[in-house]
Amino acid sequence: MKLERVCVVGAGTIGSLCAVHMAQVANVSLLVRRPEQAKAINDNGLRVTGKSELVSDVLATTDPDELPECDLVIAATKATQLEAAISPLEGRIAEATFMTIQNGIGAEKVVSRYGSWPIVSSVTFMSGTRHSDHHIEYELDTATWMGPYHESGISQEVVQGVGDLFRRAGLKVEVLEDLRPAQWSKLIFNCVVNGVAAVTDLPHVRLFAQRESPGDLGHFVRDVMDEGKAVAAARGIELFEDPWEMNVQAVSHGQTDYDEYAHVPSMLADIRSGQATEVDFILGSLVSEAGEAGVDVPLSWGLYRLVKAREVAAAKQRESA
Amino acid sequence: MKLERVCVVGAGTIGSLCAVHMAQVANVSLLVRRPEQAKAINDNGLRVTGKSELVSDVLATTDPDELPECDLVIAATKATQLEAAISPLEGRIAEATFMTIQNGIGAEKVVSRYGSWPIVSSVTFMSGTRHSDHHIEYELDTATWMGPYHESGISQEVVQGVGDLFRRAGLKVEVLEDLRPAQWSKLIFNCVVNGVAAVTDLPHVRLFAQRESPGDLGHFVRDVMDEGKAVAAARGIELFEDPWEMNVQAVSHGQTDYDEYAHVPSMLADIRSGQATEVDFILGSLVSEAGEAGVDVPLSWGLYRLVKAREVAAAKQRESA
Repeated sequence: MKLERVCVVGAGTIGSLCAVHMAQVANVSLLVRRPEQAKAINDNGLRVTGKSELVSDVLATTDPDELPECDLVIAATKATQLEAAISPLEGRIAEATFMTIQNGIGAEKVVSRYGSWPIVSSVTFMSGTRHSDHHIEYELDTATWMGPYHESGISQEVVQGVGDLFRRAGLKVEVLEDLRPAQWSKLIFNCVVNGVAAVTDLPHVRLFAQRESPGDLGHFVRDVMDEGKAVAAARGIELFEDPWEMNVQAVSHGQTDYDEYAHVPSMLADIRSGQATEVDFILGSLVSEAGEAGVDVPLSWGLYRLVKAREVAAAKQRESA
Repeated sequence: MKLERVCVVGAGTIGSLCAVHMAQVANVSLLVRRPEQAKAINDNGLRVTGKSELVSDVLATTDPDELPECDLVIAATKATQLEAAISPLEGRIAEATFMTIQNGIGAEKVVSRYGSWPIVSSVTFMSGTRHSDHHIEYELDTATWMGPYHESGISQEVVQGVGDLFRRAGLKVEVLEDLRPAQWSKLIFNCVVNGVAAVTDLPHVRLFAQRESPGDLGHFVRDVMDEGKAVAAARGIELFEDPWEMNVQAVSHGQTDYDEYAHVPSMLADIRSGQATEVDFILGSLVSEAGEAGVDVPLSWGLYRLVKAREVAAAKQRESA
């Protein structure tokens, strides 16, 4: 399988990290939403510091007509922007394999609405901070997990090929025959960690795992995760990792209960900047799966509704600011 | 019964509203925490605008030794400051009747720890906005409900006397033989409205009663109130008013889903100013009563834990600001 030409859709943190690394081993084009970002990237190159130190020449454009043919499309927008970004690709780049990398579940279904491309499902644990439109700091160089989206008729060999490309590009990867156990582990983790961060205004600090006294936040985190695990079990999915253990591990480096430099989950970052969060794709997916599976998830519903309300407050405050 | 000398403890919104009105029909002294507030009140008088237009001379002091004898002590601090404010009164003003007016439940127990005074229990629905240490705008001139705290050996006649004093002072009052149904109605209302406001950053707007789509906040508000109602029922208390109806009515004047001039519940005001909230006296009381009654209240516990976490975030942000 030839994977020499890669198109990355979306140049947020994850899209930029993918594009810069891919450019070490492939020709990379980048489809972005804002003309000023395309210009910044074309003028300066795309730069990553931190865990990697790289500057790459990539062709950035806002116009799908300007995209060259390619072998692999990495759809790396936020879940909230996926449909708007992918729909103009309908009828184009027919030969490519697609790869989804969104939080939550359901991105593959959105992509397959616009073409019969083979689709690689993935979840990533990489993280970074955007310093500007063309400069990302690479923080956690953890793996991206990928597997076949069977409904798209993809073969495991193609997934392996994409995995090899990631590896050659210097990114950590884990290729699985069934991604859903990993996807659900991350879904449940993200539901709770992002939801709780969004409503408490806390970065992901040790309090998320604290269960010493009855009022401690860790009890709530664990209780909501237990609901998610019940939904996964009812869906016949054996989780890849226990979300509670992922949570405990993620905060274990903190020296105190509260560490102001701790990771700011993306939904909290969105609330702080008055933007729409991915709550419908994360908690929204979970409560909807729970409904289909007939599992009662009152705490997840509660958290979902609180985040939706917090979004309204954040947007109103931004309007009046 | 002679009620000519009134001491108000605490000059927040409720304490100030009581003091100014009481001063129309009694000699009023005011015990406050901050010397600068005592000075501001002694220099300027205490002023109320809005629903009443009054300026009253009251003697404000921070020193319990300077308090004149009195017939009625209205303990009007926040629940969080009650114990610190009342404990210096131990062994003093032995002849007085006390009145508690805190949010939540349990204030009477705190007062009775420091003296064997007869105690009037009350809950108030008055509200206002503090413009300065000596100027309050009186917004909602709704009633204060009062009844006997039987454990203190008070007679209904004394409660009637205090009720009459309030009435003569121009305040609306409802004297009940058992306050607990009203106290619990307000407790449940406050648990949810204050808790949800504190974590969503929303003032008390129409979204709190909205139940059109499954993600709407009103579902959560109602579900948590249902838990509170189950606890009241298990405690043998028939509510005075349905908290959900109180919520619907309180937001019904809003013209849109979101009204930036809507009432900011006190726990949200505290979060915004980085102060400790009354959550332990409101949601904390409810979950503890639920435990004693053997009623399962997972949503109330969840909301309690989220508010506690939000308090930590608010305090940390204030520290680093």
